[in-house]
Amino acid sequence: MIGLYKKRDVAIISAAATKCGEHWDKGIKDLAWEAGVKAVEEAGISGKDIEYLVVGNMSGGMFVGQEHIGALVADFLGLNPIPSLRVEGACASGGIAFFQGYMAVASGLYDIVAVGGVEKMTDVEQEQATTALSGAMDFEWEAYFGATFPGIYALMARRYMYEYGLKKETLAKVAVKNHYHGSMNSLAHFRNKINLEEALSAPMVADPLGKYDCCPISDGAALVILAPLEIARKYTDTPIIVKSSVMASDTLSLLKRRDICTLDATVNAAEKAFKLAHIERSQVNLIEVHDCFTIAEVLAIEDLGFAKKGEGWKMCDEEQTYVGGNLPVNTDGGLKASGHPVGATGVKQIVEIVKQLRGEVERGRQVKGAEVGLAHNVGGSGATAVVTILARG
Amino acid sequence: MIGLYKKRDVAIISAAATKCGEHWDKGIKDLAWEAGVKAVEEAGISGKDIEYLVVGNMSGGMFVGQEHIGALVADFLGLNPIPSLRVEGACASGGIAFFQGYMAVASGLYDIVAVGGVEKMTDVEQEQATTALSGAMDFEWEAYFGATFPGIYALMARRYMYEYGLKKETLAKVAVKNHYHGSMNSLAHFRNKINLEEALSAPMVADPLGKYDCCPISDGAALVILAPLEIARKYTDTPIIVKSSVMASDTLSLLKRRDICTLDATVNAAEKAFKLAHIERSQVNLIEVHDCFTIAEVLAIEDLGFAKKGEGWKMCDEEQTYVGGNLPVNTDGGLKASGHPVGATGVKQIVEIVKQLRGEVERGRQVKGAEVGLAHNVGGSGATAVVTILARG
Repeated sequence: MIGLYKKRDVAIISAAATKCGEHWDKGIKDLAWEAGVKAVEEAGISGKDIEYLVVGNMSGGMFVGQEHIGALVADFLGLNPIPSLRVEGACASGGIAFFQGYMAVASGLYDIVAVGGVEKMTDVEQEQATTALSGAMDFEWEAYFGATFPGIYALMARRYMYEYGLKKETLAKVAVKNHYHGSMNSLAHFRNKINLEEALSAPMVADPLGKYDCCPISDGAALVILAPLEIARKYTDTPIIVKSSVMASDTLSLLKRRDICTLDATVNAAEKAFKLAHIERSQVNLIEVHDCFTIAEVLAIEDLGFAKKGEGWKMCDEEQTYVGGNLPVNTDGGLKASGHPVGATGVKQIVEIVKQLRGEVERGRQVKGAEVGLAHNVGGSGATAVVTILARG
Repeated sequence: MIGLYKKRDVAIISAAATKCGEHWDKGIKDLAWEAGVKAVEEAGISGKDIEYLVVGNMSGGMFVGQEHIGALVADFLGLNPIPSLRVEGACASGGIAFFQGYMAVASGLYDIVAVGGVEKMTDVEQEQATTALSGAMDFEWEAYFGATFPGIYALMARRYMYEYGLKKETLAKVAVKNHYHGSMNSLAHFRNKINLEEALSAPMVADPLGKYDCCPISDGAALVILAPLEIARKYTDTPIIVKSSVMASDTLSLLKRRDICTLDATVNAAEKAFKLAHIERSQVNLIEVHDCFTIAEVLAIEDLGFAKKGEGWKMCDEEQTYVGGNLPVNTDGGLKASGHPVGATGVKQIVEIVKQLRGEVERGRQVKGAEVGLAHNVGGSGATAVVTILARG
């Protein structure tokens, strides 16, 4: 895969997302439509210019009885008869959609490509949502025996604490930081700040993970439009270049992993993404990582190569991951505070990086002079990972 | 999309499918594994040679609680850490997967690519299966008001009968022909022949469609392996060339169509597929069409351009669609008799064309000297269509 053929460079010419949250008044079509129209208007193009549509969605069937999501979004955005499809890789569906759209433009197959992500999760009861999300793990070997995602990540957290001396206080600091960033993000699901004491005294979900260690169930959508770099300036003064986008896979079930404190899919994808992008980790100004649980943010920092295994938690503990710190992480509040509409999250992360690199986010959470950003999207407990590196044009 | 960039020609180097049917002893992983291992062995490659995996699956969540199907299949075929994903476009998921795999090789992104399709449908009650399948239509505007797929296609059949003078007897002839072909196919779900009287006197499902006008609910999987044509002969003496593969979309709900007797997505995809392939319809020796209901086979013959609108039924009535006739249609028995494991069907159709072009199917249903074949896969009532044209190398 190193040496992946690329005919030309690709740029993001527009990027938009809905607010995340409990959208009782909006269905899956409304959410996709809202993000889509915002992105099309921002690009100043007509729907007719779009040649191909890829939509990330994890479980439209389980959440709202609706599959066939690619054609559905094409239909409601008025894009028929262009080719459209849904891609799925659990919570990495959005990242996969971006990878697919990027490949389609990079290879020269299409010029103008729309990449969306959408999930409507709050129409079902909590228990049904948990069942739907269990579809991301090995259902027969994990979910069937009672495992839930908080339980799976709690296993990873416990082992990591045992191996490397992580304390619950540090996980709480991750949540406090993400709520702080989210408080400044007008599209975030949660905009309340929390303090360390609140985080530590919250009800337990799966020991050692409490309520504030877990991301919420959110409705939301995001959409970005891609074009070859050579024509991108026709549409925008600030094209954002896709330096690389790489996917990798791993076993679905934890029991087959060599080490449950490492997401090998992230390690593999990140290594290749940096090589293809010709960028060093020291050049990266901010990262969006897949913090479905606080422990996942710690693991991501390490698996992406920003800290040695067993030492990522120190960056969190020393608060280097705030905007203004050495490596701002999840400047939109991450999955924890900005929300996690599962199939949309990977695209929503890209939207945040684009807005940051353009200098367009709210004061207080804007990373000054950001030139390079990285998005990291994970499916399940790490069976899929997508790493995308973006830079100012 | 005409002028779709192609760096190089692509060939299918191996193709395999499981038997379709009610596989009480096999889960979704077992089915995918069986098709995958057969295809890998036929190609004489090692799993390590495969660089990319695309899997078509419509509704793993609704049928067996399992999403994340791309990584799951990669996991159980031992392909980690290669990039893997599931694609979905309802019953066209398999065709979409093929299109994606074809693009990946044609553009030069990858050399050896596996394209699979799998569906395990019989673990749920009939009513749950109907609900799951309703996810292929516009759930809010159709399924919510009680529409089912037999009902939707019955509307199309009634209108077509009114407009063009089609009789129930002709639809019955489609079923009789597909059961006849299926009787000679060792992998078919149904291997019983039926006669016209049996077809006409079968219980009504949705007037005018009776039991034999409807395809069954099947478990099954299929997998093909693609390579650049220039290296294909390393793996096989009979590479099958992908002349073109094209997707198109349309509205999900019938109520927004200009004409419910035409699948515009099929018309659009077919027109482009023939142009890109530089092949005339008269050169095509056999076609696999998406006969989820008998009326769909009639519409497909017309929308693909093998008959004028309103006249396709005459070819069926005159029995020109048998092996040995002017245009053999569904030589494996079609969805009707060979089975319809929804997400796998599009790949299974490709497998049939490959075996026919290689001269490898059972006597009696082998199209002699076949040089060119076409596969036509539809999602829902036509919101997605994929047309693929294959030829002997």
